Amino acid sequence: MELWFTEKQTPALGITCLVRETVCRQKTRYQDLAIIDTVEFGRMLVLDGMVMTTEKDEFVYHEMLVHVVMQAHPAPRHVLVVGGGDGGAIREVLKYESVETATLVEIDGEVVEACRKYLPQISCGLQDPRVTVLIEDGLEHVKRSVGKYDVILVDSTEPVGPARGLFTVEFFRDVYRALKKDGIMAAQTESPFVNRELIKEVFAGLGGVFPLARLYLASVPTYPSGLWSFTAASKCYDPKNCRQKPVETKYYNFAVHGAAFCLPGFVRELVGGKEQ
Amino acid sequence: MELWFTEKQTPALGITCLVRETVCRQKTRYQDLAIIDTVEFGRMLVLDGMVMTTEKDEFVYHEMLVHVVMQAHPAPRHVLVVGGGDGGAIREVLKYESVETATLVEIDGEVVEACRKYLPQISCGLQDPRVTVLIEDGLEHVKRSVGKYDVILVDSTEPVGPARGLFTVEFFRDVYRALKKDGIMAAQTESPFVNRELIKEVFAGLGGVFPLARLYLASVPTYPSGLWSFTAASKCYDPKNCRQKPVETKYYNFAVHGAAFCLPGFVRELVGGKEQ
Repeated sequence: MELWFTEKQTPALGITCLVRETVCRQKTRYQDLAIIDTVEFGRMLVLDGMVMTTEKDEFVYHEMLVHVVMQAHPAPRHVLVVGGGDGGAIREVLKYESVETATLVEIDGEVVEACRKYLPQISCGLQDPRVTVLIEDGLEHVKRSVGKYDVILVDSTEPVGPARGLFTVEFFRDVYRALKKDGIMAAQTESPFVNRELIKEVFAGLGGVFPLARLYLASVPTYPSGLWSFTAASKCYDPKNCRQKPVETKYYNFAVHGAAFCLPGFVRELVGGKEQ
Repeated sequence: MELWFTEKQTPALGITCLVRETVCRQKTRYQDLAIIDTVEFGRMLVLDGMVMTTEKDEFVYHEMLVHVVMQAHPAPRHVLVVGGGDGGAIREVLKYESVETATLVEIDGEVVEACRKYLPQISCGLQDPRVTVLIEDGLEHVKRSVGKYDVILVDSTEPVGPARGLFTVEFFRDVYRALKKDGIMAAQTESPFVNRELIKEVFAGLGGVFPLARLYLASVPTYPSGLWSFTAASKCYDPKNCRQKPVETKYYNFAVHGAAFCLPGFVRELVGGKEQ
């Protein structure tokens, strides 16, 4: 028997993967959680039927969400990850010696537990003494925090269900206030082929709240279209610059940092049409 | 009824698309040819079950195959496209005023005919008076040509069936000889996630024949992993440089030209590990 998992990435497009076994499956308070072992991508975290991360390609997403803004800041000491219950973003954050505290705020504790148990290569950073894991609504945590963080990383699911609030101007304002006066943030902002309106909205929203907003790109095979966008927004440091020593990575490097901001024409259209 | 077309991109990974209708389907002398109308990507050319090109994302592949080396040459006059029966590469080549002749050599005449009929936005360039379409084996044509072309573009299918010979050192030597003394070439060289050994082999092969070989990348949603590689090889002009006026494009621009050569670490490994 062959078992195939298919994610309908849009109503008319899917990715389908041959499955070795279902490692775990449960209904949490918030979502349908599964970890499956696929032949092509190794273990895969699937929430509400959507691929969140896989052993084989998670490095692209996590490195590119984290290192661009971590490098743009001269010495990030206090870092917050909103969402990202798999721990992959935290693992990357911990590569910087300047980091004193790394806080993960994830709404669904069962995601964190499943990833600790079944995705140890991704979640390993969560054991680090600098890390605090808070199981609560990221929106609430950010709203309560004032001038507290050097870097905030929004590692959300798609803008449906509990993550919807993470794509609103109200949240961006709260992130601005939760950052120190030279703070910087990055958020995953979906595919420029598939989610064009969302990217425009988020970019305009962040650009209205922060003095500097820039869109950048990376290639994540298991996400719709394979081309993924991130939006960096900053109070003073330009996200295009690297201010730190290199850290060990498999996708990110200083050349890729600069290249990620070089947008193809059909993506430039989403951010006002100018070269960044 | 819902009709879905699924391409098994690897034995364990597939892309699946909702189909409006089958526009044409036939067995040619060389392959199974279909053009289907998909909801997500518009009309799609499928050869032996593999997606070759689609109305929605063909611009990425064709622009990036063509413009990088066309721009790197100061005045390409005579250009050869090997394969590429859909005509998309020819359409891009014709954007340069310096071009006097553009020759398409495609082994399967039925591909050209089907694309002329059903994919006019892609094949439109084939009507241009500067264009000659030769229905013959590209390997033979290149072997017979000596010092004839400024630019050769290898727009092949996967390295199986009739296209296998287009990935061999013997062919690369013939391409070298078919080029003028300052000639330059580019070939599509598959995905750095999925086809790592092939990229290594082709890069080493071209690097052994030409003084300069460079790998570059672009994001094509309908190709395996969404991340696609091309290899440029040149007798004297560095493929990283732009020497022409800009032409009208949707993906390619001068910033993207430079950025495409900035390789993530896991891709650098395939070309000797150094920054290009």
